[in-house]
Amino acid sequence: MATKHVGRQTLALSAPPSFLGHACVVGKKEGEGPLRDSFDMINNDSLFGEKTWEKAESAMVKTALETALKKSSLSQGDIDYVFAGDLLSQCSGTSFGIRGTDIPFFGVYGACSTMAESLALAAMCLDGGFAQHAMAVTSSHFCSAERQFRLPLEYGGQRPLSAQWTVTGSGAAVLSAGGPGPYITHITPGRIVDWGITDASNMGAAMAPAAYDTLSTHFSDLGISPGEYDLIVTGDLGAVGSDILIDFFRKDGIDISKNHRDCGLMIFDRDNQDVHSGGSGCGCSASVLCGYLLNGMREGRWEKILFAATGALLSPTTTLQGESVPSICCAVSISRHLPGQSA
Amino acid sequence: MATKHVGRQTLALSAPPSFLGHACVVGKKEGEGPLRDSFDMINNDSLFGEKTWEKAESAMVKTALETALKKSSLSQGDIDYVFAGDLLSQCSGTSFGIRGTDIPFFGVYGACSTMAESLALAAMCLDGGFAQHAMAVTSSHFCSAERQFRLPLEYGGQRPLSAQWTVTGSGAAVLSAGGPGPYITHITPGRIVDWGITDASNMGAAMAPAAYDTLSTHFSDLGISPGEYDLIVTGDLGAVGSDILIDFFRKDGIDISKNHRDCGLMIFDRDNQDVHSGGSGCGCSASVLCGYLLNGMREGRWEKILFAATGALLSPTTTLQGESVPSICCAVSISRHLPGQSA
Repeated sequence: MATKHVGRQTLALSAPPSFLGHACVVGKKEGEGPLRDSFDMINNDSLFGEKTWEKAESAMVKTALETALKKSSLSQGDIDYVFAGDLLSQCSGTSFGIRGTDIPFFGVYGACSTMAESLALAAMCLDGGFAQHAMAVTSSHFCSAERQFRLPLEYGGQRPLSAQWTVTGSGAAVLSAGGPGPYITHITPGRIVDWGITDASNMGAAMAPAAYDTLSTHFSDLGISPGEYDLIVTGDLGAVGSDILIDFFRKDGIDISKNHRDCGLMIFDRDNQDVHSGGSGCGCSASVLCGYLLNGMREGRWEKILFAATGALLSPTTTLQGESVPSICCAVSISRHLPGQSA
Repeated sequence: MATKHVGRQTLALSAPPSFLGHACVVGKKEGEGPLRDSFDMINNDSLFGEKTWEKAESAMVKTALETALKKSSLSQGDIDYVFAGDLLSQCSGTSFGIRGTDIPFFGVYGACSTMAESLALAAMCLDGGFAQHAMAVTSSHFCSAERQFRLPLEYGGQRPLSAQWTVTGSGAAVLSAGGPGPYITHITPGRIVDWGITDASNMGAAMAPAAYDTLSTHFSDLGISPGEYDLIVTGDLGAVGSDILIDFFRKDGIDISKNHRDCGLMIFDRDNQDVHSGGSGCGCSASVLCGYLLNGMREGRWEKILFAATGALLSPTTTLQGESVPSICCAVSISRHLPGQSA
C-alpha cells in the first residue's frame, strides 16, 4: 500500500472524508459573545435542566450529537463509530453523554486538543476503510471544569490575568466517506512538549511550544508555508499563548500574525466579557469549529483552514505535586474543495 | 475500497498487523502471584524510586515502553504513533510517562478496557496505511487508583468481597505492518452498556453486560461460535463478573466456561492473596496480555485468542452523585498464524 506518511508525523489522506453535518450547543456567556449567530443552540440555564453541572455537560454532549445527526439527515444506526472526550476525570462528561446511544464508542483524551484528536481518528477510520460515517464530539462546562481543576465556585477565588475561561459548550461533527466537503485532507498528530511551565493558571504559555512544534512540523513535513492556509486556527492559546506562538515563528523569520486566529480569542469579546486571557476547554475549539468555521467555509469565506487544537495534559494532582504542564497540539487540514474540484 | 466492516460493529483487517515486541512491568504483589515468571520486571518498591504514586505509575509506563522497544529491536524514532491511557484523572499517568519520548501521541480513555482500545486503534492505524510501527501502552497502580477512586490508603477502609484489587502494572506492545505474528485479525469496538448498577465496589457486575454485548456481537457479526477461540480472555470481570458473563451465555444455550479466562482471576491467587474478587485496572489486562498470553502464543500454547477488555466508565464524582456505572468492552482477535500460513 502506498504510504500516507509525509515526513516525520504528517498524514496525507488518500480518500479525504467530508464533513456531512456539524452542530454546537453553548451556554449563556458564549451566547452573548461575538459568535452568537453561529451556534445551533444557546441555553441560558447553566444546568441544562439537570441537577448537577456534570450532568449538564453530558446533556450538552447528547444535544450536540443529536443535532449534528439531524443536520446530516442520519440516525444513530448510520454512525459506525463515535470518537469523543472531555476534560473531566475519567472523561465522564462524554461517557454519560454518549450512554443511551447505540453507537460503538472510542474514548479519547487530549485535554483541550480533544476535538482535533477525535476528528483525526475519525478521519483515519474513514480513510482506512473502517467506516462509512464516524463522529467526533467534545465538550466542556465552566462550572464542572472549575470544580474539577480549581476551586469551588462558591469560594470566589480571584483568577490571574493569564487564566482562561472554560467555555460551556459542546461541538459534534459527522464525517462521511463521501460528500460535498469541506474535507479533511491532512493530519499532523502531536508529540508531548513540556518546557517547564508550572503555573496551571497560564496554560497559554504551557501550550504555545506544543502548538509551535506541531505547526512547524506540519509546514516542514508538507513543504509549505503558513500562507498556504486562509486561516491557521489554534484552540485555545488565549492572548498570552497566541502572542508567544507568533513570537516563536517570528524568530524563524515567519509572520503568522496575518492568518492566525485562536478559538479562545474568537468566542468571547475580551473587552466586554470578563474572561481574562480568553476562552478554553474541549468545548471551545469544538463549538467554534462546528459553527463559525465550518459554516464560513461552506459560505465560501475560506478555502483552506488548519485547525490546530492544543491541550494541557495536567491534572489537579500533578499540579499539587509541583509538576510542570506537558502539552500537545494536533493539527487537521480542512479544505473546501479537493484538488481538481472546481472552486 | 472493499469494506472491512462485518455486521454491525466488527472489523476484519485486510493486512493484519503483527506483534513485534511486548513487555510488562509490575509491582511486588503481582510478582508474588501465579504469573510471576511472565513479567519482564517486578519492582518491590511500590514507588518505583519516585516520590509519589502518580510519578511511580509514570515511571512504570516509561519502563514498559522502553522495554517493549528494546525487545522489538527498535528505537523511539521508529515508532510512528503511540496510543496510550490510564485510569487517573486526565490520564496523567500516561502523559507524564510518555513525556520525554519523541513519539507522536494519541491519548485514549476506556477505563480498564484501554489496552484493547489502544491496540484496536494502533492496529487500525497500521492496517489503514498510516504507520509502519505503532505502540499501545496502558498502566494502573494500586495506590494511585485508591487515592483517585476510593479512600486514602491510611484510612484502611474495609472493602466488600465484590471489590477488585487494582493491579500495579504497565503493559506495552509494539505492532508492526509486517512480522511473524501473532497477528491482530479482527476488532469489535464496544458500545456503552449500563444496566443500572450503582455500587462502585461491584465493577464486575457493572461490566459483565458490556462484555456480553461485545462478545455476542462479535460472534454473530462473524458467524462463529465461542469455540473458535482457544481462549476468550476478559479483563477484568473478576469472580463476580465472570460468573455473570458465563450465566448470560448459558441462557443463550452457549457454554463459554471451558475456554473463558479473566485477567483479574489469572494475575492473583485468590486463595492466598487478599484480593477479594480479583485484579482490575488498565495495567491488569495489559500486563497479562503482554506477558503470559502473548508469550504463550509464541510458544504454541494457543493458536487463537479473543482479548476482550472491559471498562467501567465511572468517576468518583458520578458515583457521589448517585449515578450508575456505564461500561464498555472492546474485543481484539489475536491469531498466531494467518489463514494459509503453516501452523
